[in-house]
Amino acid sequence: MLQKPRGTRDFLPEEMEQRREIEMRMRSVAQNWGYREICTPTFETQELYTIRSGEGIINEMYVFEDKGGRKLALRPEGTAAVLRMYVNEAKVLSKPVRWCYLSDCYRYERPQKGRYRQFWQFGAEQIGADTPAGEAEIILLAYEILKATGVRFTFHIGHLAPMKHLLSDLSDVHRKDIMALLDKKNFDGLQKYLEEINAESLFASLKSLLECRTIDEALKICGDMPDKERMCELIKILDSQNIEYRLNLGIVRGLDYYTGMVFEGFADNLGAENQIIGGGSYRLAHLFGGEDVASCGFGIGFDRVMVSIGEFNPQKPPLVSVVYTPDVSDFSFSIAKIFREAGITTELNLLERGIGAQMKHAAKTADYAVVIGKREAKSGKITLKDMKSGEQKELSADSAISVIRGVK
Amino acid sequence: MLQKPRGTRDFLPEEMEQRREIEMRMRSVAQNWGYREICTPTFETQELYTIRSGEGIINEMYVFEDKGGRKLALRPEGTAAVLRMYVNEAKVLSKPVRWCYLSDCYRYERPQKGRYRQFWQFGAEQIGADTPAGEAEIILLAYEILKATGVRFTFHIGHLAPMKHLLSDLSDVHRKDIMALLDKKNFDGLQKYLEEINAESLFASLKSLLECRTIDEALKICGDMPDKERMCELIKILDSQNIEYRLNLGIVRGLDYYTGMVFEGFADNLGAENQIIGGGSYRLAHLFGGEDVASCGFGIGFDRVMVSIGEFNPQKPPLVSVVYTPDVSDFSFSIAKIFREAGITTELNLLERGIGAQMKHAAKTADYAVVIGKREAKSGKITLKDMKSGEQKELSADSAISVIRGVK
Repeated sequence: MLQKPRGTRDFLPEEMEQRREIEMRMRSVAQNWGYREICTPTFETQELYTIRSGEGIINEMYVFEDKGGRKLALRPEGTAAVLRMYVNEAKVLSKPVRWCYLSDCYRYERPQKGRYRQFWQFGAEQIGADTPAGEAEIILLAYEILKATGVRFTFHIGHLAPMKHLLSDLSDVHRKDIMALLDKKNFDGLQKYLEEINAESLFASLKSLLECRTIDEALKICGDMPDKERMCELIKILDSQNIEYRLNLGIVRGLDYYTGMVFEGFADNLGAENQIIGGGSYRLAHLFGGEDVASCGFGIGFDRVMVSIGEFNPQKPPLVSVVYTPDVSDFSFSIAKIFREAGITTELNLLERGIGAQMKHAAKTADYAVVIGKREAKSGKITLKDMKSGEQKELSADSAISVIRGVK
Repeated sequence: MLQKPRGTRDFLPEEMEQRREIEMRMRSVAQNWGYREICTPTFETQELYTIRSGEGIINEMYVFEDKGGRKLALRPEGTAAVLRMYVNEAKVLSKPVRWCYLSDCYRYERPQKGRYRQFWQFGAEQIGADTPAGEAEIILLAYEILKATGVRFTFHIGHLAPMKHLLSDLSDVHRKDIMALLDKKNFDGLQKYLEEINAESLFASLKSLLECRTIDEALKICGDMPDKERMCELIKILDSQNIEYRLNLGIVRGLDYYTGMVFEGFADNLGAENQIIGGGSYRLAHLFGGEDVASCGFGIGFDRVMVSIGEFNPQKPPLVSVVYTPDVSDFSFSIAKIFREAGITTELNLLERGIGAQMKHAAKTADYAVVIGKREAKSGKITLKDMKSGEQKELSADSAISVIRGVK
């Protein structure tokens, strides 16, 4: 039996309807905030990703060539392609650009539990504002979108300015090593490393910075520093909007990439792989040949959000199963049409089985059965059976529709 | 400047909103008929496509390998993957299976005008009915979906039984050659060919069959033949449902693939590349290791439908632009929140420009401007400006929302 490729998934209707419901909620919050949906191709030139992330990323992507011998890659994430599109279209766009997207992304790796080779990312990018209000908007939007899905999560908001300020006298190499140690929360290693490079005085400030929970504490640790006003204005707006978050000035992942504000969100009920969102401020357009423009945005791990919220039943219209004998198929098709036009999902029994077998099938799948035989076709009426109560009545199609809609 | 790969497209919000609107209309008709959406991976094992279409298709697909050295291909069309999924999931499914999908598909070829390397197909498959009612349903569903998009089209419905019956005494090779000539409407060539193989008597019947417009004419040409009752029952149901179509017993494309009923649709306003739908009855599951099961379905060329219907403005909620000075950003964010919660799309001006510049921007993009300065922040009221009439008023947020909603 042929199988789907390893590490990929098929979605049956039950799961797909849940995904569409959550997708719709995310998109409608984004649109409500003026973030309009765009779509970029599934594959891009390899260069787009190596420019952003270095040659190493080639080993993590599905790569192939087009007829012209150009090297292409299935997108490993959403942002780069969106910024490439921005660069191509920038002339006609008024700033700030507010875009959202739902992109399927691809990861070339050995499959692991809960990690798929094709996965979905819901993202938003805001390009060209470069203000604390712009950064606040992106964070608040992300927060509202996650809220709308029903996922329970913890939000960490940070800023790279304090950390960068503390490490500003160090070389790039030392900075990177320290970041790596901080990311692993390896404080023993950090202390040893700082001693080695004669910067042991930093240890206490770094540790306090990671532990501090208010911006005032952070300012006490760092003193005067670049971006201080901007960071304070961002926090002021956030705090005025009643969002629940934890200030985390120790977010160091993506330090090479993000330029200031950074944030992360974690689902409360997932295990080790619980990060469901990452975002921040960045500059990317100039790397792709555009002007240097400040941007901020985020990517939500759509699949992890789905796992976290678990199964649920999206609202659906009632389902009617039309049970009929082949000699009245014309009339049955016409009745089905009337029901469908009334917004009721209507399935005809197509298998030419007996009425009994059809009713059995209807009992498993439908809310109501509409039974049509010769008598009904002649009278123009139908027999409506409520599959839950077992009640049945002979009615006109219009009256049956009223009953199904719950109108007495 | 980095560009998108040749033969691919970026979709800006205006186009994307139109596409989402049409996608939503298609999906909601399908769901109304009990066709529930599924999703398969973007790539499949190469084998899936070579089994169906022969080795030749490899040259028309984007192919690459996974870490295990398995050969994969970006899907060139939707049906094969859906049937592969059916085979994998068949045990838990009650028949007939009714599925729909919107799949992005990939074509590895030199780009041509109007033909893209990534394109979209909206399809539906009905698996396991094997009845004329089932075939009628698929045709009627396709017709309703196209109607719902607003595309103007001509529908051709055919059946392979008469043609197969006329050619039943010939060898496979001869049959294929004749099909190729018929497909090109090369009647001179056909006549010559039939003479060569001593079957010139067929010429008149074939030509009449292609020209006949009613099932009765066809039966006169073919006499008694297999599948006669089934074909007649299908046509009888279709004719009872008032759909506009042309009987076309000369549809020979896909003769190796389709098993009986076939249909095609053509947009009225497109040029040579005007086919927007193709469908029919087929058997595929057994090729993928499943049981031999009758199926029927169709694929709609989503992109061509979009070209045919042209640009339009999907209904959207009014857009409000919040014009404010940075010293009242907290209050402005709170006002934006109230408007958004009322379902009004609300954009904050994030650029820290003067009120005049912000109003100019609002005039270009928004239906209403909400102006907030120190005075408003103090009074708790806002100034609402109708950007069309120029009228402006100081109001509470709630009253402003009523005005925007058109409630007096």
